[in-house]
Amino acid sequence: MATLQLLQSSVLAKGGHFSFSARKQPPWPWRGGVRMGLREDGPSVAVVGVTGAVGQEFLRVLSDRDFPYHSIKMLASARSAGKPLSFEGREYLIEELKESSFEGVDIALFSAGGSISKKFGPIAVHLGSVVVDNSSAFRMDEGVPLVIPEVNPEAMAHIKLGSGKGALIANPNCSTIICLMAATPLHRHAKVLRMVVSTYQAASGAGAAAMEELEQQTREVLEGKKPTCKIFNQQYAFNLFSHNAPIVSNGYNEEEMKLVKETRKIWNDPNVRVTATCIRVPVMRAHAESVNLQFEKPLDEDTAREILKNAAGVVVIDDRSSNRFPTPLEVSSKDDVAVGRIRSDLSQTGNHGLDIFICGDQIRKGAALNAIQIAEKLL
Amino acid sequence: MATLQLLQSSVLAKGGHFSFSARKQPPWPWRGGVRMGLREDGPSVAVVGVTGAVGQEFLRVLSDRDFPYHSIKMLASARSAGKPLSFEGREYLIEELKESSFEGVDIALFSAGGSISKKFGPIAVHLGSVVVDNSSAFRMDEGVPLVIPEVNPEAMAHIKLGSGKGALIANPNCSTIICLMAATPLHRHAKVLRMVVSTYQAASGAGAAAMEELEQQTREVLEGKKPTCKIFNQQYAFNLFSHNAPIVSNGYNEEEMKLVKETRKIWNDPNVRVTATCIRVPVMRAHAESVNLQFEKPLDEDTAREILKNAAGVVVIDDRSSNRFPTPLEVSSKDDVAVGRIRSDLSQTGNHGLDIFICGDQIRKGAALNAIQIAEKLL
Repeated sequence: MATLQLLQSSVLAKGGHFSFSARKQPPWPWRGGVRMGLREDGPSVAVVGVTGAVGQEFLRVLSDRDFPYHSIKMLASARSAGKPLSFEGREYLIEELKESSFEGVDIALFSAGGSISKKFGPIAVHLGSVVVDNSSAFRMDEGVPLVIPEVNPEAMAHIKLGSGKGALIANPNCSTIICLMAATPLHRHAKVLRMVVSTYQAASGAGAAAMEELEQQTREVLEGKKPTCKIFNQQYAFNLFSHNAPIVSNGYNEEEMKLVKETRKIWNDPNVRVTATCIRVPVMRAHAESVNLQFEKPLDEDTAREILKNAAGVVVIDDRSSNRFPTPLEVSSKDDVAVGRIRSDLSQTGNHGLDIFICGDQIRKGAALNAIQIAEKLL
Repeated sequence: MATLQLLQSSVLAKGGHFSFSARKQPPWPWRGGVRMGLREDGPSVAVVGVTGAVGQEFLRVLSDRDFPYHSIKMLASARSAGKPLSFEGREYLIEELKESSFEGVDIALFSAGGSISKKFGPIAVHLGSVVVDNSSAFRMDEGVPLVIPEVNPEAMAHIKLGSGKGALIANPNCSTIICLMAATPLHRHAKVLRMVVSTYQAASGAGAAAMEELEQQTREVLEGKKPTCKIFNQQYAFNLFSHNAPIVSNGYNEEEMKLVKETRKIWNDPNVRVTATCIRVPVMRAHAESVNLQFEKPLDEDTAREILKNAAGVVVIDDRSSNRFPTPLEVSSKDDVAVGRIRSDLSQTGNHGLDIFICGDQIRKGAALNAIQIAEKLL
């Protein structure tokens, strides 16, 4: 059941034995349809931060998509080192992340936080690995492509596997990925001049421990107890709050500035005007975003809906008569970003404005899936 | 404890004996500071829908503010008629709402849904009552003032108590009240041209039963059970969804159109451009709203903050260094609307734009308090 799966995912990282079954959907027909991950001719892969929420999703997505690999290293902190982990029917031991970990590694998938990426990313690159980094450490660095495969694959076209040259590719922030999956097809058609975004962000963006905290707090509140606040400094259960990222000098928080800056970089458009208000809501693993768009060229809502229906990685859920639109729960553990509430903005004239509502799985397309789609482009 | 109170409020309406203690804060110094509700010279009051979430809050607010009354009638459907109800130390019996209920009633506070208002509102007016109606039944009617006392008290200045002439005054929609409490002081200073609103709306807006459903569903999901969906047609616990109001022909839902139309009427400005996306979030009784404003005249964020600090019924919570901003939980059962995240909008130039984040108690300022403030203006 979806609801159970939703909550269970928050306790997967509690340690002990990790197990990943090969959930084969949707099938990804890799080179002629041979569906087996472990292959002589596949790249050597390393997963950095394998015990985290995104790390675990990396494994699920690799398996779901039959990502080919010659070998796979499970890397984490010393705390988890030595623990067993089952993946695609084989037993692995989690290894401690070290400078030498990347010898012989072709593709390193990083999701262990910005400081780990800053320290070990360049080491991996120096040793010839292509690093796909899920942290914000390198996203705005000039030489580092910031890639959503459906949006700007060309940004990483110069990076080749097996050239012996290492490279960094950055995975955008989850809110940016989910927003631009829906906004880009419309942008290509009518050019977005300005975008006003309000987010409804899930616990998972703050990691597996935050998901556990939401679950624990909710139980406590229902039992009449004082909620335990460790990850966040205030009650999260039955509440919401401004995103916990630090506020920068202009009054925006860092999460909001990621939406502003990453959109400009991904669209290669320094002039696109973006504002965002990022809010954390008591939802487990999928984000929602209310997005108001202003276009250079007119774009009516029916055309917009058709464009979105035909966009890769996007599903339109926009049933006005039955009041059925995207929800975070419905997109949880799904690959596609869902878009609905597509309508001409009453506050703009001449079909130059649209309001849309987007939901996407934060851990999957917002992080692990996007990173592995980047890795697939390298094959 | 706030969290307990939060959840207990959802089970207050379960029937049986209703009890309201006189929680005396803040003291409302009525005519020389005598603090006693029941007075010979007070008006005769009727509360229509007294067993509902807003009906109960009517009583709490009347008591908190020492609203003077000569007598008070507790009206509800036949289902609740005959049940005892304690209020300010006296015992009442809930009476069935009938056409004759309004004989001798000076002020009738309605919150029993639009169809009850449509049927009984005109009857009460005919019998000489001033009806303060919390439903949407008459809000957009030309002769009916739509009032937020801090915003447009002049709209009801012609309505007098004791003139023998009945009248209707409409209470705006909760989202509109909460939004305009913060937007109006800024509008007066710099004139709002356009407003983009995204809401984070609590269960209480759909009534006490919806609050119970959220609580029940949350327990069920945590126990691994299938959530019971009666009020809403989908899972609400750990989820969010587009507001359940019907969608109208332009693709907006009725809740969004209330924000659009009511703002124009309350501001007496048919040209103000408003768009809104209304979303229901798993929070009990306070709404949040992310509001992007575009002004005719420049308005910097420091001036805006000062204006809001001095606005009646508004409290500013805007501590960037400790990341402390308004939350629904913090404003629950409070009178004031809280505003924070006040910042110049990066996507607009020349200080012509601001982003703000507003929280307000849906049942209190969003409904009961505003209605009773209207009634106070009649005294």
